[in-house]
Amino acid sequence: MHVAIPLYPRFTALDAVGPYTVLAFAPGVTVTFVAGQAGPVLDDRGSLSIAATASYADLPRPDVVVVPGGPGTLEALSDQALLGWLREAHEHTRWTTSVCSGSYLLGAAGVLKGLRATSHWAVLDGLGDFGAEPVSERVVVEGKVVTAAGVSAGIDMALTLLAQVNDAETAQAVQLAIEYDPRPPFDAGSPAKAPEGTAERALTLIS
Amino acid sequence: MHVAIPLYPRFTALDAVGPYTVLAFAPGVTVTFVAGQAGPVLDDRGSLSIAATASYADLPRPDVVVVPGGPGTLEALSDQALLGWLREAHEHTRWTTSVCSGSYLLGAAGVLKGLRATSHWAVLDGLGDFGAEPVSERVVVEGKVVTAAGVSAGIDMALTLLAQVNDAETAQAVQLAIEYDPRPPFDAGSPAKAPEGTAERALTLIS
Repeated sequence: MHVAIPLYPRFTALDAVGPYTVLAFAPGVTVTFVAGQAGPVLDDRGSLSIAATASYADLPRPDVVVVPGGPGTLEALSDQALLGWLREAHEHTRWTTSVCSGSYLLGAAGVLKGLRATSHWAVLDGLGDFGAEPVSERVVVEGKVVTAAGVSAGIDMALTLLAQVNDAETAQAVQLAIEYDPRPPFDAGSPAKAPEGTAERALTLIS
Repeated sequence: MHVAIPLYPRFTALDAVGPYTVLAFAPGVTVTFVAGQAGPVLDDRGSLSIAATASYADLPRPDVVVVPGGPGTLEALSDQALLGWLREAHEHTRWTTSVCSGSYLLGAAGVLKGLRATSHWAVLDGLGDFGAEPVSERVVVEGKVVTAAGVSAGIDMALTLLAQVNDAETAQAVQLAIEYDPRPPFDAGSPAKAPEGTAERALTLIS
């Protein structure tokens, strides 16, 4: 099982590394970071770069694609190398997935037409522009197309995926291996639950 | 506020990138990945490398240190450049922290003597060898020394830290920015809750 995670400038690190860690811990799974060309790709904070070890041309037919989001999505919407690769890879994938605003790139590649899909809460409504039906859920499974909400939701998505790709026992073993027994010190992780004013503050952090 | 995250071969990616993403989203926080020398450092799966952009000598006095764990901890226990840097940095830090088996490195640097501390469940008891009192908690705060349980616990730790360094409103805004409203598809994230046999399977994945 070969998983490809495309990287582009100003991606959000946890969008990529959450699912990466979950999937790479599973037996029989290989994960490769890909980009227009191999080499380091800088994230949205400008302080973390992850090395892409293959170009899109090197890995045309991965079994699974996980597209991370981030502020760089906007520029990536006109990255024809990325979108062309997504479009063609999707024809052969077992699963085509995204985290956060990565769903915009699936949308731009034509993958989401007529499908329910999700994204980061701050940009969810815009998914309608790609012919998708935006839904406010943590993980949305539509056949082989799986979209996750913002950033940390990629961890939940990858565990859901792993239970399908392998089995529940494997997903649970990975969950325990990464001790994913979350205890956030606050209950502010969704706009519906966060205290008044939090969404405005959050928007200033992600823009 | 300058946060340093030391990288060493075979670290676990999410140990580093969970806290990184939380802290780097906060206003006024700079995060730098450091190592013996600047350059890419390969993780425990052998498929992700993050670039260290500074050497230990370049950043002797960070305000906060976050030490990730991973199978590479064992070899890192004899990395005198890393341990010497930790020991000296700790004298001046505002917070000295670890995720997962990163607490072994704090222990080896002499930071945990007489303190309650935690680590990944699979290696928790070994903390006693460093004069620490091992406790099975998600995040343990002992003065300025903060240790977190395995891998994903670094996200909870970083939010806890941020609430102290800045304030609860900032931590909540970051939590909402990364949409950290966890919904694991299973309840198998701790040995106490995972189905029988899961711990054995998890151990084969992390060794």
